[in-house]
Amino acid sequence: EIADAIAGALADGPLKGKHVVVTSGPTHEPIDPVRYIANRSSGAQGTAIAEALAALGAAVTFVTGPADAARPRGVHVIEVETARQMLEAVEGALPADAAIFAAAVADWRVTQAADKKIKKDASGVMPMLDFAENPDILARVSQMKEGRPALVVGFAAETNDVVDNATAKRTRKGCDWIVANDVSPETGIMGGSENAIVLISSEGAEDWPRMGKVEVARKLAARIAEALA
Amino acid sequence: EIADAIAGALADGPLKGKHVVVTSGPTHEPIDPVRYIANRSSGAQGTAIAEALAALGAAVTFVTGPADAARPRGVHVIEVETARQMLEAVEGALPADAAIFAAAVADWRVTQAADKKIKKDASGVMPMLDFAENPDILARVSQMKEGRPALVVGFAAETNDVVDNATAKRTRKGCDWIVANDVSPETGIMGGSENAIVLISSEGAEDWPRMGKVEVARKLAARIAEALA
Repeated sequence: EIADAIAGALADGPLKGKHVVVTSGPTHEPIDPVRYIANRSSGAQGTAIAEALAALGAAVTFVTGPADAARPRGVHVIEVETARQMLEAVEGALPADAAIFAAAVADWRVTQAADKKIKKDASGVMPMLDFAENPDILARVSQMKEGRPALVVGFAAETNDVVDNATAKRTRKGCDWIVANDVSPETGIMGGSENAIVLISSEGAEDWPRMGKVEVARKLAARIAEALA
Repeated sequence: EIADAIAGALADGPLKGKHVVVTSGPTHEPIDPVRYIANRSSGAQGTAIAEALAALGAAVTFVTGPADAARPRGVHVIEVETARQMLEAVEGALPADAAIFAAAVADWRVTQAADKKIKKDASGVMPMLDFAENPDILARVSQMKEGRPALVVGFAAETNDVVDNATAKRTRKGCDWIVANDVSPETGIMGGSENAIVLISSEGAEDWPRMGKVEVARKLAARIAEALA
């Protein structure tokens, strides 16, 4: 705590006085008290981004799902489980100068999670589950009529046609940048320590060389500082 | 490694010369490269059981899904992800004197996991997923015609009617004991450090007082040693 406070006070960088919201990790969507649907996400990239922003002087609100990665230091951490809780935490954290949505949010939830464990019967047939689409946090914040953060950054984890999919996503959501990467199993990126980024903006697609997730975070934080200057 | 070897050599207890297979943790059943269905299970109870059995001299094969708990020491660890991989690992580890199935295995899997990330379209409708029932590892080993372990122990995580559900499960699966517990959210047992067990056997239901998961493991290991003596 004391070390964090000192680090915060020392971080007199280009983001001093700026508030940035960062989401990170997966969301877990309950099926019943013991089962859930999840996305694979260690939270490593989002955690590194939060720390890199704080190191440049930003006040960071870090909204994280149940992730394995140790929580970042020197930031305000809010722990959530579901997509709906994440949206609520993000909306509660605004206004902000920038919002960086690095979390791997589940697209769907089970409409009515059972409050008792669903029992397997002899039929071999899975009980029917009704799914509903989760709120789209990136789209909702990107399209705010009032109080929209000056810079909204989304992430796209793709397994194919990375640039095309991510470019279309940027337009569809209305965000400023998309940080896209290829998470095909053969890249070893998911759960690994490296990342290979394409940054999509109104200027087009910018390929970054493969580098560690901490280096990606520092480079992205520097670009955010430039954009907010 | 050396400490483990010494611990193993020192563990000249009542289970010396016995081989016990222990499963632990959740299984993850992939939907596509980034999404999966999971059970909540930290692996804490299974890990404690493996260590307690090893401390009594057993040679332990520990088959674990992707669990948060640190792997037990002094045992042979096999890491798996899905229910089908867990079954394969268990079958490969037999013969054994006892098999303790503490894992929270997913009942269902997605029949054909997509090899590319499923894209959300504009319809708001979730893509149809076909589910298939996973192999029932406990039932399959309990009902082996040849080479069945002398003692087969299943676990039942229940949220209601604990004794009735667990007693019926014991009969249905054909195992010797069921270690049943109430994992309703209000008990704080799931993800916590304590457990409240009912041990179901042919003798009936035996209530254990609420105690730490390590104490549950020691008590269970002592009972297993008695049963195999």
